[in-house]
Amino acid sequence: MTAMTDTTTEFLAACRAAIGAAHVLTEPSDTGGYLTDQRGRYTGRALAVLRPADTGEVAEIVKLCAHYAVPLVPQGGNTGLVLGSVPDQQGNAVLLSLRRLNRIRAVDPINNTMTVEAGCVLQHLQEQATAVGRLFPLSLAAEGSCTIGGNLSTNAGGTGVLRYGNTRELCLGLEVVTAEGEVMSSLKGLRKDNTGYDLRDLFIGAEGTLGVITAAVVKLFPQPLAQVTALVALDTPAQALQLLQLAQSRCASALTGFELMSDFCLQLVCKHFPEQRLPFAQRHAQYVLLELSDSESEEHARALFESVIGDALEQALANDAVIAASLAQSRALWQLRESISMAQAHEGKNIKHDISVPISRIADFIATTDVLVQQAAPGCRMVTFGHLGDGNLHYNVSPPVGVADSAFLGQQSAINLVVHDSVDRFGGSISAEHGLGALKREEILRYKSPVELRLMRAIKQALDPQQLMNPGKVL
Amino acid sequence: MTAMTDTTTEFLAACRAAIGAAHVLTEPSDTGGYLTDQRGRYTGRALAVLRPADTGEVAEIVKLCAHYAVPLVPQGGNTGLVLGSVPDQQGNAVLLSLRRLNRIRAVDPINNTMTVEAGCVLQHLQEQATAVGRLFPLSLAAEGSCTIGGNLSTNAGGTGVLRYGNTRELCLGLEVVTAEGEVMSSLKGLRKDNTGYDLRDLFIGAEGTLGVITAAVVKLFPQPLAQVTALVALDTPAQALQLLQLAQSRCASALTGFELMSDFCLQLVCKHFPEQRLPFAQRHAQYVLLELSDSESEEHARALFESVIGDALEQALANDAVIAASLAQSRALWQLRESISMAQAHEGKNIKHDISVPISRIADFIATTDVLVQQAAPGCRMVTFGHLGDGNLHYNVSPPVGVADSAFLGQQSAINLVVHDSVDRFGGSISAEHGLGALKREEILRYKSPVELRLMRAIKQALDPQQLMNPGKVL
Repeated sequence: MTAMTDTTTEFLAACRAAIGAAHVLTEPSDTGGYLTDQRGRYTGRALAVLRPADTGEVAEIVKLCAHYAVPLVPQGGNTGLVLGSVPDQQGNAVLLSLRRLNRIRAVDPINNTMTVEAGCVLQHLQEQATAVGRLFPLSLAAEGSCTIGGNLSTNAGGTGVLRYGNTRELCLGLEVVTAEGEVMSSLKGLRKDNTGYDLRDLFIGAEGTLGVITAAVVKLFPQPLAQVTALVALDTPAQALQLLQLAQSRCASALTGFELMSDFCLQLVCKHFPEQRLPFAQRHAQYVLLELSDSESEEHARALFESVIGDALEQALANDAVIAASLAQSRALWQLRESISMAQAHEGKNIKHDISVPISRIADFIATTDVLVQQAAPGCRMVTFGHLGDGNLHYNVSPPVGVADSAFLGQQSAINLVVHDSVDRFGGSISAEHGLGALKREEILRYKSPVELRLMRAIKQALDPQQLMNPGKVL
Repeated sequence: MTAMTDTTTEFLAACRAAIGAAHVLTEPSDTGGYLTDQRGRYTGRALAVLRPADTGEVAEIVKLCAHYAVPLVPQGGNTGLVLGSVPDQQGNAVLLSLRRLNRIRAVDPINNTMTVEAGCVLQHLQEQATAVGRLFPLSLAAEGSCTIGGNLSTNAGGTGVLRYGNTRELCLGLEVVTAEGEVMSSLKGLRKDNTGYDLRDLFIGAEGTLGVITAAVVKLFPQPLAQVTALVALDTPAQALQLLQLAQSRCASALTGFELMSDFCLQLVCKHFPEQRLPFAQRHAQYVLLELSDSESEEHARALFESVIGDALEQALANDAVIAASLAQSRALWQLRESISMAQAHEGKNIKHDISVPISRIADFIATTDVLVQQAAPGCRMVTFGHLGDGNLHYNVSPPVGVADSAFLGQQSAINLVVHDSVDRFGGSISAEHGLGALKREEILRYKSPVELRLMRAIKQALDPQQLMNPGKVL
C-alpha cells in the first residue's frame, strides 16, 4: 500500500461510507489475489480493492473517483491474458472488483434473452440458460471463473464463434456506469433498435477504459438436440481449409466447432497428460476437431457427419477420422484440444500470440511465418492451434530443447516483432480475442493507422476527460 | 439554388477542380432527383450535388467542406424513410452522392467476404455473391436501388435478420472518410480483431453524421441448397409467437423468415392487386409467412417443414397452412408480403411506425396499443405486419373509411405520441430499422435517456467538432 495523504484518507473514508468498510480492502493479505494477473507475471499496486454490491454502489464509487481524481481499474474474474485488469505500479489507483454484482436479473426464454450483472461467472450463465431449455453459447477455457463483464469488456471469443459470433454478437444491451458516475441503462433486449449511435459496441471491447459495464442483456439460442464431435487427421493447414469449405457448405450453421491442432500440440498433451490418447494408429501432421450441433436428432447429426467426413476422405482432404460414438468419447476429443495450453505450460515458458488473419490466408501465413521464426530463433518449437474457422490462431512459440526459459524469454520482443510484422503483412490482427490491456498497448502503435489512433483518442477524451478509467490500458 | 457569395463561388470552383465540373451539379433539372426524399414528402435545398468518383475524391471534397465550413449530406440510393439523406431548407449544404463509388474491389469466397464500395446497389451485391456460390443475405424492399453505404449508415434490417442479423452483423470492416477528410481504412475482413475501440460499429447506423462510409467488407454465407416457404393461417399474434417458438426449436437457424401479417393487410393486397390470391378457402385473423433454408436438400427441407407445421396444426397453433410446392408458389407467397406497403399506398395516406419490442411482449403490445389508437382516432384501420421473429412491426395506421387524407394527417403527431409512448412502456424502440434522420430527431428526445443523449453528443463533438456532417440528422 501507498503512504496515505490526507486526501487519500478522506477518499477511502468516503468509499467505506458508500459500500461498507468490509468491502474496502487494504490489507495485502486481502488484496493480493486481485493485484496479480492470472499468469502470475505481474503484480500491481493499489490504494485499495473496492467491492461494491450493486450498480448504485459502483456509481457512488466512480463519482468519488471523479471527485478525488483517483484512477480506477475494473476487474471481473481476473482471468485476462494481457494485463488489462490489474493496476500499474503507481499505487494511486483503486481496483474495482465487480464480483459481487452477480445476480441474474431476468430470464426471458421467449425473447431468448437473459439480463445479468457483470460479476456473473460465465459457467453459471451457461447453466441458467440450460435450466430454461436454452443455450448461452459463449464458451472458453476460463469459463469456470471468468465473468460476463470481463467477457464483454474484452469482447471474448472462444470456441463457439464460428456459429454464434464473439461476445459482442451475443449482447443486446448494456448497463454502464460512465466516467462521471452516471448510470446508462440500455437493457431493452431488442433485436432491432436504430435510434442513434451504437454506444453498446463502444463499451464492449473497451477494456474498462470508457466506463464500467455493470449489467447486460445477452442472447439465448435454442438448445441443440444433439452434438457430435469428430477428429480428423490430415497433412497440412491448407487441407484443413478445404475441409472447412466442404463442412460449411454441407452443414451450414450446424457446424459449431472447427479447431486446428498441430501434431506437436497433441504430442505435448499426451506427454504431460499420459491418460489422454490420440485415437489414431499413426501420427499425422495436423488434426481438426469438428463439432456438429443438430436440432433434429442424434441420428440425423451422425448421418450428416458421416457423409461429410466420408466425402473428405474420398476427396483426400483427410487421412483418417473418428466420430465420437458417445458423450464420453466426445469429451475426450475436446479434452485433447483444451489441454494444449496446460500441456504447454508444463513444458516450460512460452511466447503466446493470439492472432487472426483472413481465413483464406491462414495456411500461407503459417508456412511463411514458421520460416521467419526459425530464422530469428533457430530450433524454436511451434505450438500452433486455434479456431481455424474464425481465422484465429494461438500461434505460440516454445523454446528449443535445452534452452533455459530465462534465455528464451529474453528473445520475446524480437519474436513478437517477427510474428506480428508477418501478421500485419497478411492483413491480420495482433490481438484476435484477448484485447490489448497493458501488454500490447505500445505494440499496437506500430500496426494501427494514425487515423484510427486519433479517433480512439478523441473518443477516450470525450468520454473520460479526466483519464481515470483503467489508465494505461488500450491507449 | 442559393445566392452565391464569393466564398461559395470559390468553394464550388475548388470542388470542380477536385472531381470535375461535370460532377458538380447545380441546375435544378440535374439536382431535383437528389433533393426530394423517396416518399416525395420533402424537398431540401443545396449549394450543389457533388458526385465524386472514388474515396480519394470524397476525401478531397470533405477537406474542402471542412476548410470552407460547408455542411455536407451524404446520400446513397435515396431510399430512406426518415429524411436522413436529403438536406434541409437552409441551402448552405452540399449533397454528396456516393453512387459513383460502385466498384466491387474484391471477392474472397474462402474468407466468405466481399469488399465493396458504398455506392454499390444491394441487389448487385446479392448477384455477385450468387455468382461465386455464396449468399449475401441482406434483403429488403428497396434492394433494387438502395446502396450498401446507405444500408450500413442506417444499419438496415429487412427480411433476413432472424437468421443473419442486421446490416451491422454483416459487416467486418469499413473505409470511412472522417470529418477532417482523412481516410480511415479498416478493410481487413477479420472475424476477430480486438485491438481497440469498435470504430466500425460507431459509423454503422450513424446516418452519416460522424463520417462518410466509402467502402466495406461484408460477410458472405454458404448458399442454401433449398428454400421452402409456407403460409400459416391463425387467429392471434399470441399464437404466432407460440408458432415461432416451435419452429425455432425444431429448425434452429434454418428458419430464415417469420413474417406476421394481419388479415386486413392481405385484404388490401388482394383489393389493389386482384391478380394476387390468398391460398385459403376462408379468411383468418392473422397469417405468418415462414421460410426454411436448407443445406441438405429440398426433400429434407420439405419433410422438416411438414413435420413442424403438422405439429403446429395438431397443437392448435395454426388453423390452416400451405407449403409452396414450387418456386413460383413460393414467390407468390412472398409477393403477398412484399405488396403490403404498396397496397397501403394505393389505399391512401397512412401513418407509419417502425417499432420493435421484446419478442415476448409483442402480442400484448398489439392488443394494448390497438385499443389506445382507437381511443385517439376512432375508426382508424391498423395495417400491422412485420418481422415478428425480430420483435419488429410495421405498425401502420390508415384513416377511417371516408376520412380525407389531409384531415387524417393532421392527427399524425397525436397518433405517433400514442403509439410511441406505448412502445416505450413496453420497453421498445421507436425506430427499429429505419433510423432517426430528420424525422424522428425531436421525438427521440422524449424516449432516450439524458445519459445516452449526453454520450452521443460528446461523441459527435469529438468526431465532428465543426458539426458539418449531415447536420440536423440523428442529434
